Amino acid sequence: MSQKLGVCLIGSGGAVSTTIVAGVALMRKNLAPKQGMITESPLAQGLALASLDKLVFGGWDLREDNAFEAAKSHEVVPQHLLNFVKDDLESLKPWKAAVSSKFLHSMSGQNVLACGSFREEIVSIKQDMLKFKEAYTLDGLVMVNLTSTEKFSEPQEVHRSLEAFEKGLDENNSRISPAMKYLYAALDSGVPYVNFTPSLTNIPALAEMARMKKVPLAGEDGKTGQTLLKTALAPMFAARNLKVDGWYSANILGNNDGLVLNDPESNKTKVTSKRSVLDNILGYKVDDHQVHIHYYKPRGDAKESWDNIDISGFLGERMQIKVNFLCKDSILAAPLVIDMVRLIDLAKRRGDYGIQEQLSLFFKAPYHEAGQQPEHNLFTQHEILVKWMRG
Amino acid sequence: MSQKLGVCLIGSGGAVSTTIVAGVALMRKNLAPKQGMITESPLAQGLALASLDKLVFGGWDLREDNAFEAAKSHEVVPQHLLNFVKDDLESLKPWKAAVSSKFLHSMSGQNVLACGSFREEIVSIKQDMLKFKEAYTLDGLVMVNLTSTEKFSEPQEVHRSLEAFEKGLDENNSRISPAMKYLYAALDSGVPYVNFTPSLTNIPALAEMARMKKVPLAGEDGKTGQTLLKTALAPMFAARNLKVDGWYSANILGNNDGLVLNDPESNKTKVTSKRSVLDNILGYKVDDHQVHIHYYKPRGDAKESWDNIDISGFLGERMQIKVNFLCKDSILAAPLVIDMVRLIDLAKRRGDYGIQEQLSLFFKAPYHEAGQQPEHNLFTQHEILVKWMRG
Amino acid sequence: MSQKLGVCLIGSGGAVSTTIVAGVALMRKNLAPKQGMITESPLAQGLALASLDKLVFGGWDLREDNAFEAAKSHEVVPQHLLNFVKDDLESLKPWKAAVSSKFLHSMSGQNVLACGSFREEIVSIKQDMLKFKEAYTLDGLVMVNLTSTEKFSEPQEVHRSLEAFEKGLDENNSRISPAMKYLYAALDSGVPYVNFTPSLTNIPALAEMARMKKVPLAGEDGKTGQTLLKTALAPMFAARNLKVDGWYSANILGNNDGLVLNDPESNKTKVTSKRSVLDNILGYKVDDHQVHIHYYKPRGDAKESWDNIDISGFLGERMQIKVNFLCKDSILAAPLVIDMVRLIDLAKRRGDYGIQEQLSLFFKAPYHEAGQQPEHNLFTQHEILVKWMRG
Amino acid sequence: MSQKLGVCLIGSGGAVSTTIVAGVALMRKNLAPKQGMITESPLAQGLALASLDKLVFGGWDLREDNAFEAAKSHEVVPQHLLNFVKDDLESLKPWKAAVSSKFLHSMSGQNVLACGSFREEIVSIKQDMLKFKEAYTLDGLVMVNLTSTEKFSEPQEVHRSLEAFEKGLDENNSRISPAMKYLYAALDSGVPYVNFTPSLTNIPALAEMARMKKVPLAGEDGKTGQTLLKTALAPMFAARNLKVDGWYSANILGNNDGLVLNDPESNKTKVTSKRSVLDNILGYKVDDHQVHIHYYKPRGDAKESWDNIDISGFLGERMQIKVNFLCKDSILAAPLVIDMVRLIDLAKRRGDYGIQEQLSLFFKAPYHEAGQQPEHNLFTQHEILVKWMRG
Repeated sequence: MSQKLGVCLIGSGGAVSTTIVAGVALMRKNLAPKQGMITESPLAQGLALASLDKLVFGGWDLREDNAFEAAKSHEVVPQHLLNFVKDDLESLKPWKAAVSSKFLHSMSGQNVLACGSFREEIVSIKQDMLKFKEAYTLDGLVMVNLTSTEKFSEPQEVHRSLEAFEKGLDENNSRISPAMKYLYAALDSGVPYVNFTPSLTNIPALAEMARMKKVPLAGEDGKTGQTLLKTALAPMFAARNLKVDGWYSANILGNNDGLVLNDPESNKTKVTSKRSVLDNILGYKVDDHQVHIHYYKPRGDAKESWDNIDISGFLGERMQIKVNFLCKDSILAAPLVIDMVRLIDLAKRRGDYGIQEQLSLFFKAPYHEAGQQPEHNLFTQHEILVKWMRG
Repeated sequence: MSQKLGVCLIGSGGAVSTTIVAGVALMRKNLAPKQGMITESPLAQGLALASLDKLVFGGWDLREDNAFEAAKSHEVVPQHLLNFVKDDLESLKPWKAAVSSKFLHSMSGQNVLACGSFREEIVSIKQDMLKFKEAYTLDGLVMVNLTSTEKFSEPQEVHRSLEAFEKGLDENNSRISPAMKYLYAALDSGVPYVNFTPSLTNIPALAEMARMKKVPLAGEDGKTGQTLLKTALAPMFAARNLKVDGWYSANILGNNDGLVLNDPESNKTKVTSKRSVLDNILGYKVDDHQVHIHYYKPRGDAKESWDNIDISGFLGERMQIKVNFLCKDSILAAPLVIDMVRLIDLAKRRGDYGIQEQLSLFFKAPYHEAGQQPEHNLFTQHEILVKWMRG
Repeated sequence: MSQKLGVCLIGSGGAVSTTIVAGVALMRKNLAPKQGMITESPLAQGLALASLDKLVFGGWDLREDNAFEAAKSHEVVPQHLLNFVKDDLESLKPWKAAVSSKFLHSMSGQNVLACGSFREEIVSIKQDMLKFKEAYTLDGLVMVNLTSTEKFSEPQEVHRSLEAFEKGLDENNSRISPAMKYLYAALDSGVPYVNFTPSLTNIPALAEMARMKKVPLAGEDGKTGQTLLKTALAPMFAARNLKVDGWYSANILGNNDGLVLNDPESNKTKVTSKRSVLDNILGYKVDDHQVHIHYYKPRGDAKESWDNIDISGFLGERMQIKVNFLCKDSILAAPLVIDMVRLIDLAKRRGDYGIQEQLSLFFKAPYHEAGQQPEHNLFTQHEILVKWMRG
Repeated sequence: MSQKLGVCLIGSGGAVSTTIVAGVALMRKNLAPKQGMITESPLAQGLALASLDKLVFGGWDLREDNAFEAAKSHEVVPQHLLNFVKDDLESLKPWKAAVSSKFLHSMSGQNVLACGSFREEIVSIKQDMLKFKEAYTLDGLVMVNLTSTEKFSEPQEVHRSLEAFEKGLDENNSRISPAMKYLYAALDSGVPYVNFTPSLTNIPALAEMARMKKVPLAGEDGKTGQTLLKTALAPMFAARNLKVDGWYSANILGNNDGLVLNDPESNKTKVTSKRSVLDNILGYKVDDHQVHIHYYKPRGDAKESWDNIDISGFLGERMQIKVNFLCKDSILAAPLVIDMVRLIDLAKRRGDYGIQEQLSLFFKAPYHEAGQQPEHNLFTQHEILVKWMRG
């Protein structure tokens, strides 16, 4: 019989989270097609995945709105569909969130943990999960980071080893971000973890802890729209030995995610994450690779990207490709999260732990062991996942 | 020591042919970068390919212009570069071509074989190759079809077996096209053959002959621009379980190829070839897949495609991708031909014969055994070729 | 006090008609903004236009569905808005339509006039209007042609004079189309007439009749999306003395209008109408001006155009502009019809009659006197209208 | 007989300047078509304009290269054409430029005036013009600012009156930019002046001086590509009462102009100039109007813009227009400068002086009297110019 699986969403009132929760409820009632998920494709047949019917959602958010109110405000799932699953959504009332204005200052909310120390925050996070598990008699849990992008930071001494990190927690070291605290709490509770944001969590200290605690983890930064296209097109150029001379990427979006990215420091985190994929696939440094993200109100969640690619081919002759993707941010993201939740839960039950490289397909900047290069080629990633699913 | 390899171009005065001949001459003199060819990429290291320095070009064309005059008129390779290789191009004077107004009526020329029968035409084609081989003391030959697209035709009784085909030749059966006569002559001479056009040659009679004569062959219809993009993007949609609801493809081009495609019957041959790739990769029939090709004078060889892709994802929500490719037809095609010439020559020397499926990467509608499906996924094709190159 | 104005829609169950009827009802109830109409802009202040509250709709359609059922099927106005005005729409039940399979064979319906002769059809049309006027005690009427595009035809002898036309009616001359019969009935009843379709009505016979009967008329083919853009961009090129070398226009749409245009003969009528604008504004013949219209199912009413414009400037250097318009066919059309209905009614009351050139702004191929050139420049048209409104 | 007119180019070695000089020389020799200029269109027939044959070019530049060397480096006019006019270009050796690192720090050069004071710089500029006029026995002079964009500044006290400005010059007030010094020198010499850049020159002090000295002047910031499109499309939306909800404009270019705009302070000057046009034409404030300019190396002078326009129409329904302009910066700019030089020279001879509003057509931010709004609508501007030309 399928597992009853609890999903703990950091940022449970966000656009992606509420789309997931509403979507699963709608699919359960056969009010929406089971589309866009690998775990609902023929590839997944025969796998002992947690059934969509057995997913239970909880989570933290700095706003107090229940998931129905939050979903309404995001305008992703159409209102008339939301009404069909109102009860499912209203019952999701967010737990108090651990936040830090040092890492995120654009957003505001009152539903915030007031603790004296980092250690107390972690205890609170762990208790939330424990209570959730008991309340719903869940067989397992998975934690997913779906908050807004934190400001740019780079690994420091405190992130280099578990020992240093533990000391940092004791000392409330300001270089330890909320994202890291949640991950620490997950690992300490034996809960598999997925970072869907570009916020820094891929640090040696926590990779070490994951191995020690035998917990699987995966991240970071969901590969939804423009970067998905890049990691499909770049292998095409490579396969034809066409030289990429420049790649100019502009993005416009008008949701909260976009608003946060108006903060230059959060923007830097995101752009850094988006820029890493190209050189890796092509095998050389692209001379001029630019990524710009602009908050543009008229769009709401309907994100749009415009890519301009300059290539040269035979005899050095120049050509151009322009790609315009009119997508929906949360609609692309939600099924990836559902896939990963089910797959990392399966990994846990299979006894896998540490970085789950077979999930690289889902990320812009896949977690990887220090000193190694992540795989970015979408089709190589896909093969790795398929092999893992079959084996 | 590298083989001295003769390349017999059907349509030697066309835009692609003259770009190949000029390009090889320029690269030989280090006046152009060796770009756009797989056979000049690291993947090809260690392979016993014919060197670029050892390629010699000859061919048939219904126009009398030598390759320098022809290249000038196509305006693909810049005039100042052409001047550097004038001698190399002027020495290529086309042999008389076998043509049939039944299969191509838009084009005209005087340099045409006047034979009493199909058998005589074939003898003439074979003699041209023989004389070419002797004149340049060539180690081997490869034939490439680079003529304009013939009118649409479907396999008939006369194409079903070698016996029927031989009888058809005896009777000058009007269903036997010039493209088929050239292929027959190549096979009969033991010369590997590549069909870069969509003209019908993938018929059981000639596949049978290729096996019998132990000659490798490959085709058909070079995968240069829009279809290349399709076979890279469709696997991306498949990998994400995104549903393709419609795919609208428009093409504008202003070269001779475009003019020929103004003839509805030639257009049908091309469009049929371009339309086959999508359903095969996706695993379902795309509801509305359209391909339109329009001759648009201002462009010359600078072909442009516009693709509009309608997809649906999570909860059935609709999204769009628009791709605009500003490419150069002959600049994309020429390096593929050079690659194939060198690879099929290697196949011959390795003892391979019949349909060369490892070359599927280069074609819109890869030759395949009757009853089988060709592989269209660009990345699967790429893997197959890499494996063949290594093995 | 404002006039109570009856609007007789030919094709009352079509997408544009039902959008008009629903839109006016919604605006009347303040459930939709009064946007997109010139007659609701500051320019119209002080004009004695029929108020939106005083418009009453009736019409003919070959389908029996009332306007609510029809509107639902077109999916233009969102369902939840339609529900607010259900009563207004349900009361619009179409009168039997005069149709001819000779001029339109793609569409089918049962709500069709069965008359023995053209004269009887015209009598029936006139009676429909009369009964409508009496039933609602209307002060005036306007007739608007909003049916599907008829097959291509050119003016013949029977269209050249009113006398010949009357004789043609007597003889049921097959060159007299349904569109012409409706217009004849309008003129004979003194009812102002607007042809929003490209179906041929701009014939000397009926222009003569309009002058004689002192009835204003205007047409033809509403300038909604791509052609609107053309008549704004072409004056820009002219103002800069930039040479237009080519203009390639592709259109995709998936509504009934698109389906009808799959018929090559109807397509020709439309394309001819769309192609006329460019040379007129620029003052020279554009070398390669192409217009393609393709029915593409995934889009429904969400029409899309892609224009590729090749220009040359200083020193003959070449440049390109590409315009992609993601529009909604009926949403662009409906307000133009409302504007014209109110303006031509005003013209009638002002005593104007014959061709109303001040309404050219609204048309792809404005009616014009024989031997004259219509004005196509959007901004010149706008000035002419503004002057008329003020004078 | 036509005037012999001297054109003094500030930034004579730039891409636009060298394109003008090469272009005029080529047209004079009938090696290039006389295209892209209003002053060579039928509209200009009968006007006593200086003939293209009678234009003589001189100018200042901070680099020592003669115009032939400079033109080669810009790669705008093809090399083989440049060779035909080598002599014409080599004879243009730049005079020492007045520059200030306070207003422009990205560019470097050695050909720089070394003066002790602002007054000495002005004297030097005036002497350069005087010597030029004598050397070529010129009938008249025009000065054109074609330098790189200076950093953003706003009018201060010193710019408010001629008296304050004169005092500022005496005191070497650092708020007086090089652009202002050149303009002062022109006015003081009675030389008509055109500012083709967005650098601040539209200040009350110099407008006052122009009136006093009876010198015509015009500016600022040439309306070449994206803004040209905006001022043609915005009137279209206005004419249809379609609401513009947002307008997102991205620009990529790879020439020196682009490099300078990488400096945020120069970028601000440019973006401010580009943003002003929309609200003025539409009559309301567009909610989200963004202009982004990015230096993108692969393009060189081949500037490209991408505009995304969100509009709403009938019933508030949303639609989008996307415009992609692949243009050539200097090819669009050069003919405008030639037009203005000839027209402002004519204005001078007609006795006009002060701000020449009839030249607004050529500018993104037309000079206008304090307290007034400039006209931005391209077609209204065009009408004003045509009226002036005829009158």
